[in-house]
Amino acid sequence: MQLTQFTDLGLRVLMYLSHQGRDTPVTIAEVAERFTASRHHLVKVVHFMGQQGWLVTTRGKGGGLALAHPLNHYRLGATIRVLERLNELIDCGDPPCTLQGRCHLKSILDEAMEALFERLDRYTLADAVGAPTGQAIEMLHRLRPVL
Amino acid sequence: MQLTQFTDLGLRVLMYLSHQGRDTPVTIAEVAERFTASRHHLVKVVHFMGQQGWLVTTRGKGGGLALAHPLNHYRLGATIRVLERLNELIDCGDPPCTLQGRCHLKSILDEAMEALFERLDRYTLADAVGAPTGQAIEMLHRLRPVL
Repeated sequence: MQLTQFTDLGLRVLMYLSHQGRDTPVTIAEVAERFTASRHHLVKVVHFMGQQGWLVTTRGKGGGLALAHPLNHYRLGATIRVLERLNELIDCGDPPCTLQGRCHLKSILDEAMEALFERLDRYTLADAVGAPTGQAIEMLHRLRPVL
Repeated sequence: MQLTQFTDLGLRVLMYLSHQGRDTPVTIAEVAERFTASRHHLVKVVHFMGQQGWLVTTRGKGGGLALAHPLNHYRLGATIRVLERLNELIDCGDPPCTLQGRCHLKSILDEAMEALFERLDRYTLADAVGAPTGQAIEMLHRLRPVL
């Protein structure tokens, strides 16, 4: 029961962009290096988060990524719910379950997922990058520039 | 964020075995047919659940599977926790995250997982097979025998 790699990368991008006040823009190449992540996968998740209006992306030389909103705008439950896309603990169709539509377990699992998201919604990106995380992120930003 | 197929099959086996009072034993072949599931995967999960002391398995002709305890013994949170084995929403090591050990997000995700399991622990297998699920399972048991 893990978040998808897509969600995982999305969260890492949001956390990295939480550090503000830089002169130079943050690029995908830089995020890829800092998190040892696939550039290809990052492009996809950044594009998706741009479509959600979560990121501002500017193209070309001097372009880069930035958060579109203040940190406390990104409620973790709502954010992860969108990044995950499929929010069901069990796939009743694989293999096709003969109890589909008459299964109490499914409604119990759905209720537990809601409990998980409710708990996550008590926090925002601001909490996720509270000390010492924010400081660790700031250190990453100070590493040698990625060209 | 889905349960593993292993957990999914484990839960289906437990639910199927919740129906009691049959003259003939339930076999893996029968569960495989009723849930269109892989016999190979079922053997693994049944073996594992036997090791946990959840099932009684008897070998040879006339052998089969049965629950080792009453339905309300199987608390869903505890059961799923054991079936899942890895109970972390995010794998900080894949790709290796430079924030490991200094990450608030990780502790928020751990807390949310606890909230999910706490909610699941309010229910047992007896709840999962309450009406109309138990009746649907009983119907499955009445289908033609699997040899």
